[in-house]
Amino acid sequence: MIYLDYSATTPVDKSVIESYSKACERFIGNPNSLHKLGVEAKEVIDASTKQIAELLHVKASEIIYTSGATESNNTVIKGIASKYSNRGKHIISTELEHSSIIGPLNYLANNGYEVDFVKLNKDGKIDLEDLKSKLRDDTILVSISSVNSEIGIKQPLKEIRKILDDYPKCFFHSDMTQSLGKEEVDLSIVDFASFSAQKFYGMKGIGLLYKKEKIAIEPLLHGGKSTTIYRAGTPALPLIVSVAKALRLAYEDFNTKYKKVEELNEYLRDKLSLLEVDINSPIDAIPHILNFSLRGIKSETMLHALEKDDIYISTQTACSVGDYSRAVYAITEDKERSSTSMRVSISYKTTKEEIDTFTECLKKRIEELKK
Amino acid sequence: MIYLDYSATTPVDKSVIESYSKACERFIGNPNSLHKLGVEAKEVIDASTKQIAELLHVKASEIIYTSGATESNNTVIKGIASKYSNRGKHIISTELEHSSIIGPLNYLANNGYEVDFVKLNKDGKIDLEDLKSKLRDDTILVSISSVNSEIGIKQPLKEIRKILDDYPKCFFHSDMTQSLGKEEVDLSIVDFASFSAQKFYGMKGIGLLYKKEKIAIEPLLHGGKSTTIYRAGTPALPLIVSVAKALRLAYEDFNTKYKKVEELNEYLRDKLSLLEVDINSPIDAIPHILNFSLRGIKSETMLHALEKDDIYISTQTACSVGDYSRAVYAITEDKERSSTSMRVSISYKTTKEEIDTFTECLKKRIEELKK
Repeated sequence: MIYLDYSATTPVDKSVIESYSKACERFIGNPNSLHKLGVEAKEVIDASTKQIAELLHVKASEIIYTSGATESNNTVIKGIASKYSNRGKHIISTELEHSSIIGPLNYLANNGYEVDFVKLNKDGKIDLEDLKSKLRDDTILVSISSVNSEIGIKQPLKEIRKILDDYPKCFFHSDMTQSLGKEEVDLSIVDFASFSAQKFYGMKGIGLLYKKEKIAIEPLLHGGKSTTIYRAGTPALPLIVSVAKALRLAYEDFNTKYKKVEELNEYLRDKLSLLEVDINSPIDAIPHILNFSLRGIKSETMLHALEKDDIYISTQTACSVGDYSRAVYAITEDKERSSTSMRVSISYKTTKEEIDTFTECLKKRIEELKK
Repeated sequence: MIYLDYSATTPVDKSVIESYSKACERFIGNPNSLHKLGVEAKEVIDASTKQIAELLHVKASEIIYTSGATESNNTVIKGIASKYSNRGKHIISTELEHSSIIGPLNYLANNGYEVDFVKLNKDGKIDLEDLKSKLRDDTILVSISSVNSEIGIKQPLKEIRKILDDYPKCFFHSDMTQSLGKEEVDLSIVDFASFSAQKFYGMKGIGLLYKKEKIAIEPLLHGGKSTTIYRAGTPALPLIVSVAKALRLAYEDFNTKYKKVEELNEYLRDKLSLLEVDINSPIDAIPHILNFSLRGIKSETMLHALEKDDIYISTQTACSVGDYSRAVYAITEDKERSSTSMRVSISYKTTKEEIDTFTECLKKRIEELKK
């Protein structure tokens, strides 16, 4: 099997499964309980949070556990909208966002909020001048992902932060789901950031929301005692332990792993340049994602053809709906190209041999399907 | 160790941990992915959902996976409020509800909704006449738990359903977190019901929301493709597999297990009758919960005293905040009694020997603390 869909989800690391299972067996108390079993459970959670906070260079109190990036994104977008509607009801985002950003934005747009999408340059990065022109006194939130999940476009978060410094009443959120564990993330420049463990060899069902300490939001989940007042619910101890473990592993040999993926990306680009494909990912995209369009072959057709070779890639992001890629269309304005786009997502676990086999099979399948 | 806090959370069954781990290793794809690994993952989820639906005698399409009962409760309460605000903004509940019901109700009360609490009889059951008198044309939701988590009071859901039959525009939700896996649940009489796997030897971090098929609600989590349009987010396959497993186990020897707990409860009541305690749980409460008040000893003091004997009980529910029990106060209107209440929660795994040791230690500790 050749798995080239690491941006959809990563296989869980075996030692993460072990940590999870051990935590399940060892800590049976409800972390909210007052007795020793509860206190022990709470201590384990606190230790995990401390580790995560250290790896992210933030305070432990700035970490909110959620059920995944979808909940993190919903929590921050609706939580800001609800809390600061008296300040304004204007939100700025981009057309490159994941459905769990677009979803809550559409919901707000149907409920009296105004959502603007900032223009994109040809390379997919946002037009900073357009952002400046769209910012208003009643803009309460700018939400722009660090890395687009389909094409891998990296956004200039530092430059955005500089612009937003003139708007102290406007918060800055970034969905960093495709960054964490892959490239360095700098949380000092954002107010909020969303993460998902299943993107860095952790478990499905747990995510993180980074929230700058002094900012209050309305919780999405109201209820009793938890690790924070911003998200109720019994803390899921084994999942929390597992996300700390997965993150520790992600930061081991970080630069070596990144460099390897960079080399693999270059190798793949070279191989693809010999085939009839149009590469959609710009050269400075995150190296873990390489998006390209086939000419005259529907992406889904190719996906299923490659499946026969036991090779797994994706068309759009796993969570999107529709027959063309919104993201590819946003940067190419080409319907043909956006309905024939494929995403290959690689990992430090990927080998050159896998890429060789993939490109050989792709070549074979293109010839076959073109007949 | 004598664990008598099963209503706070249950230790995870070993075979549930095994199912979870196996699912993690075996199904690596994102269930939303179009390729074989995604399709396989989706099939496993569908098979789990089918099993759960069969055990609950409902349709598979009526099961919504959440991160726990807190999310289930927030989803239904806010989802109904948001979707049907044009019908009315009146909601009826009780003072015996869990903080994850009270939390969203308070939120709505602060946002233009009107929340009424139905009066309780001396035995803690709701006053059905009072419910009738409080129901209005603009009542959109009645939310009443099947079993109170602190005292174990069972509410007459069938009678409530009959009353609500005259109000076809009003939905009926029941938080059944303390029922599922312990006593039979009848979902045919409610429109919505909430459940949490960590209460029946399953994992923390997964819950269920039963939603009657034809009722639409506004989702709490907006976003991309999932198992349902009512809750976005990548389905957490291993957690879903584990909840199906835990539920199957819960329904094995169901009646035998229930009977054993009934006997244990009776045994415990007999033992306690010899001590200076006031039993708060009515005789027809769920047998898994026995709440009593000490005279002149703060519940937290006793909790920590028993901890030294390696015995774990609780004061209020794990998730509540405050120095007295809202639930005990609601039925006793006695501050002293509600600040000295303790909850013992037992399981079919509990033994008579454990109850003997517990009551002996309790006696010893009462004498000690009264000095």
